[in-house]
Order: sequence, then C-alpha cells, then structure tokens
Amino acid sequence: MFDSANLDHRLEKAAYRREEAKLRAALLNAQYDLKENGRFPVLILIAGVEGAGKGETVNLLNEWMDPRHIVTHAFPEPSDEERERPPLWRYWRALPPRGKIGVFFGAWHTQPIVDRVIGKLDEASYASDISDILKLEKMLSDEGVLLLKYWFHLSRRQQKERLKSLEKDPKTRWRVTDIEWDYFKMYNRFVKVCEPFLRSTSTGEAPWIVVPGADARYRAVTVGRHLLAAMRERLDEKPGARAPDKTPPLLATADNLNVLRALELDQPLERDTYQKELDLWQGRLNSLSRHPGMRGKSVVAVFEGNDAAGKGGAIRRITGALDARVYRNISVAAPTEEERAQPYLWRFWRHVPRHGQFAIFDRSWYGRVLVERVEKFCSEADWMRAYGEINDFEQSLAKNNVIVVKFWLAIGKDVQFKRFKLREKVAFKRFKITDEDWRNRKKWDAYEQAVCDMVDRTSTTAAPWTLVEANNKYHARIKVLKTLCASLEEALGAGKKVGKKKKA
Amino acid sequence: MFDSANLDHRLEKAAYRREEAKLRAALLNAQYDLKENGRFPVLILIAGVEGAGKGETVNLLNEWMDPRHIVTHAFPEPSDEERERPPLWRYWRALPPRGKIGVFFGAWHTQPIVDRVIGKLDEASYASDISDILKLEKMLSDEGVLLLKYWFHLSRRQQKERLKSLEKDPKTRWRVTDIEWDYFKMYNRFVKVCEPFLRSTSTGEAPWIVVPGADARYRAVTVGRHLLAAMRERLDEKPGARAPDKTPPLLATADNLNVLRALELDQPLERDTYQKELDLWQGRLNSLSRHPGMRGKSVVAVFEGNDAAGKGGAIRRITGALDARVYRNISVAAPTEEERAQPYLWRFWRHVPRHGQFAIFDRSWYGRVLVERVEKFCSEADWMRAYGEINDFEQSLAKNNVIVVKFWLAIGKDVQFKRFKLREKVAFKRFKITDEDWRNRKKWDAYEQAVCDMVDRTSTTAAPWTLVEANNKYHARIKVLKTLCASLEEALGAGKKVGKKKKA
Repeated sequence: MFDSANLDHRLEKAAYRREEAKLRAALLNAQYDLKENGRFPVLILIAGVEGAGKGETVNLLNEWMDPRHIVTHAFPEPSDEERERPPLWRYWRALPPRGKIGVFFGAWHTQPIVDRVIGKLDEASYASDISDILKLEKMLSDEGVLLLKYWFHLSRRQQKERLKSLEKDPKTRWRVTDIEWDYFKMYNRFVKVCEPFLRSTSTGEAPWIVVPGADARYRAVTVGRHLLAAMRERLDEKPGARAPDKTPPLLATADNLNVLRALELDQPLERDTYQKELDLWQGRLNSLSRHPGMRGKSVVAVFEGNDAAGKGGAIRRITGALDARVYRNISVAAPTEEERAQPYLWRFWRHVPRHGQFAIFDRSWYGRVLVERVEKFCSEADWMRAYGEINDFEQSLAKNNVIVVKFWLAIGKDVQFKRFKLREKVAFKRFKITDEDWRNRKKWDAYEQAVCDMVDRTSTTAAPWTLVEANNKYHARIKVLKTLCASLEEALGAGKKVGKKKKA
Repeated sequence: MFDSANLDHRLEKAAYRREEAKLRAALLNAQYDLKENGRFPVLILIAGVEGAGKGETVNLLNEWMDPRHIVTHAFPEPSDEERERPPLWRYWRALPPRGKIGVFFGAWHTQPIVDRVIGKLDEASYASDISDILKLEKMLSDEGVLLLKYWFHLSRRQQKERLKSLEKDPKTRWRVTDIEWDYFKMYNRFVKVCEPFLRSTSTGEAPWIVVPGADARYRAVTVGRHLLAAMRERLDEKPGARAPDKTPPLLATADNLNVLRALELDQPLERDTYQKELDLWQGRLNSLSRHPGMRGKSVVAVFEGNDAAGKGGAIRRITGALDARVYRNISVAAPTEEERAQPYLWRFWRHVPRHGQFAIFDRSWYGRVLVERVEKFCSEADWMRAYGEINDFEQSLAKNNVIVVKFWLAIGKDVQFKRFKLREKVAFKRFKITDEDWRNRKKWDAYEQAVCDMVDRTSTTAAPWTLVEANNKYHARIKVLKTLCASLEEALGAGKKVGKKKKA
C-alpha cells in the first residue's frame, strides 16, 4: 500500500509555480460552484504520520480557497460534554453543512489505530470499530457527503530526517517532543496496523488516498489535483444522476397477521386502580432517576404512535415524576434550515443528553420510515437505508451508557375517530387536531405496513420496541411507566428495593 | 417587598378547578398565537427559596401548555466547555427562539445572590454583577424577548413547615438534604440580600413578580394569570406599536477632521523588509500561541475594513503562523434561520472560543453599526443601542480571559478603485468583487461617518480598536501581526524573550 509513497517523489519549483496558479483558480471556482450548487458538503479527512505535512496542507487549502467557506476541526482530548456522549457525537456536531468544505484534522480513525498499536484494543473490539467506521462512512456517502480521505505518509527514513530537521530549526523545534520520537520508535508497528486498516476502510465511495509527504510541493499538488477532480466530478454530475442503491423488497406477509393486529388493544384498567398504580410507578421512576448510577448514564425515550394515541399524556406522566432539571422534551417538527443542510440524523444527535439526563422524544428519527416513507417525502432508497442507520445510531447510544426505550402507542381506527371528534369539541384540545390528522387517517393501511416493517427491522436487543395497547389511556400510561422503570432497573442493576431506600 | 407574600394566601379547591380550566384553555391559545405570530420569544425565569414550588410550577406549565414549544433549562455546575467561556455563555446557548417559550430554572441571578449571602462576593463585585444583569435584561427586552421573572417566596415559618412535610413523606424525602437545612438557617441573611436585589433588578420592562409559594393552588393561579396577561398584552399589540427608545443624536464634528482622515494611509514598506518582518512576527506569534498561559486564555480577533482593504490577506498571515488546530475562521454572512430567531448577538456568542483557541472574525457584530446602519437594515434605535450592547459583550469577554483585538483596515478611495479593477481582471480574485462592492463604494461618506462613530463609541480599554493604514498591504499585515503579538504578550505577561525560549 505504501510502496509507491515510499519513493522520493519531488516536484521542481518552476513546475510547481505553474501548476499552483492553475490549481488555485480552479479550486476556487469549484468552491464557488459548490456554494452555489449547495447540494452537498465536502468533508476532507487529514490523517497519517507525524511530520508528513498534515498541518501545512490544511493551511494551504485555506490559503488556496476562500477560508470563509472552510471549517477546520481538530479533535484533541474530548471535553466533559463530549465524554458523556457516544464517541461519534463530537464528529456529528462538527459536520460541515451542504455547500461548505469541512476539514477534519484527525477523526474517528485516530483512536482505534493508536489504541491498536499500543495494544490497548483487542482484536474483536478493533474489528467492531472498523465495522462501525465503514457504516458511518457509508451513511455519510449515502447522505451525499463528498468524503475525501487523505493519508499522509513518510517512509521510516523520511520521517527520521523530517523530525531531525524540524528539531534543528528553532522555529519548529516545539513540534518535536518525546511523544513524536516515541511514535517514531513504533514506526514499524504503526505500518503493520495502518496498512490493513487503510485497506479495510477503503471503499468505492470513500477510498483512502495515500499522499507521499516528504516533498512539500509534491504533496500539495497531489492533494490539490485530487480534491479538484473529486469536486469537479460531483459538481458536474446531473442532478439525480447518482443511482440509488438497489433495495431489497420488504417481505409481504402471506396472511393478515402482523405485530399490530396481534395486539389486544382493549386492556381494562379502572380509574381507581390506575391512580394507585400511577402513584406507585411514578414514585419508583422518581427514585430511579435519583439512583447514584444515573450519574454515569442517560436516557433516551422515544414516543411514536397513531395520531391521538395519547403520546403527550404518557409523556406527561413521565415528566410529572421527574425533577424538571433532569429532562428535556424534544418535539420533532419540520427541520430548521441548519438541520436541512446536514445528514438526516444530525438533528437528533444534537439532542443526545448528558449523563443524568432524560431526553424524551415526541416523534423521532422514525419519521423517516413512517411519514416520510408513506408520504414519499424521501426516496425509497433513503428510507430503506434508514433502518440500518437507525440501528447503528441506537447501538452507538446503547454501547455508551444511554438507556434507549421506544414506545409505539397503538389504538384502533374506531377509537381514533372518537378521539378526533372529541378534540374538535374541547377548546383546549383543539390545537391537537388538524386537517393533516384526518388526511393521515385515510392512509391507515399504509401506515400500518410501515409500522410493522419498522418494528421488525429496528427492534434490537440494545433498543427494543415496546408496543403499547392504548385504547385505554390508563393502561397505556402504566405500561409505559412500568417498562421505563424496568429498563432503568436493569441498566442500573437496581432491584425493586430502590424505591424503599432510606435517606442517606 | 415580601410583606404581602408572607401572608397565608390560599385558594379553595372548587375555585381553583373553575379557574384552572379557563386558564389552561387561554394559555394554550396564547401559546399558539405566539407560535403563529412568531415575532418574539417568552423567557420565564424561575427563582426564589427552596420548597416554594418552583419545580412544581415548571411541571404545571408544561402540563397546561403544549410542552413541544416549551424548553426548560436548569443550570447545575457548569461543564468544562462552559467554564472556559464567560459566565453568560451558557445562558445565551439556552435562549428560546422567537415563537417559543423558554423556562430557566435559576439563571444569572443565582450565583451573585448565593455568593453574596455566603460572603464570597465583596460589595463592589456584587454591584458590578447587578449592573451586568440590568444591562443584559435591558438588551433582551430591547431585542423583543418577553422576560417574565417569578420569585417564589416562603416566610421563615412556611419554609420550615414545608421542609418538614417534605421530609416526612418518603416520596419527597430526597428533596431535603443538609444543604436545604443549611440554607434555611441562613433564611434571614437570604432575605437581607434578596430584598434589595429584587428591588434593584426590577425594571419597567422586566419587574420581578413575587409569588407566595405556600399554597400550591394559589401560586399556580398567580403565575398562570400573570403569564397569560403578559403574553396576551404583547400578542395583542399592533406591530410597530412599541415605541423605540429616544436616541441621543451623535455629535457631528464641527470641522472636517475625523479619526480616519487623520490617518496617513500610505506607509512605505519594501518587499524585502516585509519578508524579514513577516518571518519575525509570525515566529513570535507562533511562540506566543504555544505559551503555557494560553491554556487559560483565548483570543477573539475582529477584522473590519473598507472593501478590498486586505482583511483576508491579513487574516491569512495570522493563520499561516498558527497550528490549524488552534484557530477557527468565522466569516460573517447572512444569518441562518436559527440565528434570525435569536437576539442579535446570539450568532456571535455561539462562536466564542474555548481556552487555547483563536476565533478570527472576518467581519463581525460591528455589521450592526456599519452596513445595517448605512443600509437601514435595522432601525436607528436598534443600532444606537448596539454600541452599548457590544461594549458589554466585549467587556464580558475581556473580563473572562478572552483577549480581544479589533482591526479597522483603512484604504483610500483611489486605492480601492484600483483594487476593484484588478480583482475584476485576475481569475482567482474574481469572486472577491461583486456589484454590491461597487454599490457600497457610492456610499463612501456614510460609511466613513459610521466607522468614526463606531471607533469613538466602542474603543475601550478592554477592547481597543486598532486603525490600520492599509494602502500598502505589507505595512498593514505587519502592523496587524505586531499589534496582535503585543496584546498577547501583555495578557500573557510574556516578555520579548518568549520567541527565544529554549525547548523545554
């Protein structure tokens, strides 16, 4: 992989001058076309060995193009806000919006490689990290991100020479510390890890480009040419030319049975019993929210359901049990301009809570496979790939101390009709019923199919769906509270005794 | 101030029931009108003594209204990302956008009061905090925020009873810890601090509303009624009915002299000397950026200037000296939708850098008193109050370890003409010249007046303007670098020797 890069590539000054002027003009043009076009962002990953000109290249890109539309991010030690979220959170918050160029100085590949070299990461975890990276990059490409990955390389001899020459110059001496020399001593180990890493994370959509780093002019022109060609190619594509992935058809059930129809929607619960149960479970939830283990965990609760199924009421029975300081309601409506300029999941990632916090989603990322699918707001390819992306997202939450609970509140068509009518009558419920609700109702069967597919494809061990029979609101609310408590107890390793714990 | 609140106010259940139903419907209507109207946000501050029903009231508001358009924020211990910014940063990032209701559970008043009670804050700092609060709240009101401040009160006896009864109930026992009792012991001291505090921070636009907290029904109705009336009043106002502040006229100079005309724009500097100086100052800047003191400081550099004055070139001479990991370019263009829904300064607060970082603004918040003033994009009252708001903003940065440097790059009208013409010719500079630039040029005199006013009104000790004679680009770049280095040296207490320091 590095054979060609190990050669002593050079570019003479005169040739460089000629090419630089042209490259510069063309890159600037491409950048302005990107801004006009506004259909996709460019994300440039800068990786590779120390001393191979990564920083210099980033500065050069900022000099060649208009720095106003380039955002550079480096990723040093994570902040506490970042440490309390899944590792990918910090990259999501730094993604460039459509029409802009983002430069990531190091990214999601850095930690796995370093940890593998120093032996902190075993084979299996490393393999799982690589698989996560592949999924992430595939998702970004599918979302239209032009992902360009440059790996700056030096041969062992070149790196040694480079470090020595940096050390000799008083102006650059600071760049060479013991850490750089320690890494240099591990040169061969790095190569042994990096080579297969680059191979396994090079894909058709986002291959690694190995850049020989020894000669400043040569590496500048190499990156410049490649960047220009890649941007030009995408910019000159006709809109809609990118063929959507072939999507496997969803299995049609051969009978009339599905997970929703199998539910007994009417579940009796009397008002008196409800009140007692409500007290009991709200008390337990409250205790659990104050469990010491919650300091290292957070909760993401997703509410989906038929219109008028009682999502709001169920959510309020949860928040009513919690201190207002520990929860946030996220009501999912139309995305804002900043959200529309980002990959689909961006607007949910930004709400991932810190430790000790509950994020309660009234509708969620599942909109993609429900309303957007049924109303054809996105292409079939888009909602088909969403199942996998959503699973990856929730997996990443679950793996990183986020307790994920998901509820589908189901009511019958007749019950929905009665509730719609009632809402139209009661003054303070009137805001809850719109023409859209009546329109959605006409597509009942299409929604039912979408819900069943959703449950089949996204109910996972880490983030299972709970189907809630909601014709009786009392039953629904208690089931939601109970399920949430059970999930918390399991995650916190808290037995039922938690509710009875004495004041410390 | 608390006399009336100390009485045992009560509301009977039946009366409450009747009123609650009406309040609920009316509040919900108001909330929906707010959303439709979209012209202002509502910000509710919840403050006062422990046990007076603050949390319950917040829950109630979420229950009465549509929680999807209410965002509740509490402010526990600041995160490291927050600690590295001015204290107000965390409130700015939590502000509700227009059309929404934000509830702040504790806010900028909490710390000064507590610190004053426990004796951590001396008279002078406390007075300065109060003055900052007044300015902040005035700014919010001027920006159209409907600011409602509720102070929940209990008499000493009521608080004691309340804490005891919370302690008796196993479900609420957790709420009473030693801290609550410690605070209770300081009840009288709190009153002694809070009473004058409430008086001095009660203004016409944003008075404190003292809510008797002992009776749940009474306090709920009190807050509900007041909130409703306040929202209704603002919603029913005719657009444009709010009379802008009378603004004092700016002093016209009696002669032709002003700070710009007093500049000698032509400052010779030969290319050879420039190259040497550039090396020298870039080296020094680089050393300073790696000074250990920078771990506790950050830099905000503002670039304003005539079109074609060379802002971009000067900025690149700075970034060229810095590691790409420590700076961010913020190029100020039209605000996004999320930014437009916030007070003017919000979109700049969000870019305040963490410690060790440089934020370099290519154009800035000064757009308000330059282009927006000249082009009449905002009212005279808006840009007139901006001077004070900007000074407060920069003061808050400077007081909190941010080094603020501001450059105005000035060129002559003839030089501008030549540069415009040149830009039209050179391919890779063409993006830099638009019809707008030619239009702006026609308003040269109006801009000149605006710049002079800006410098007069916003050059402060904490954040002085540096006027840069920029007919000669070499001179301009060196002066910018020198000035930046001098500011850093002063702030870091670093002598000139810093450039020559040996490798540690």
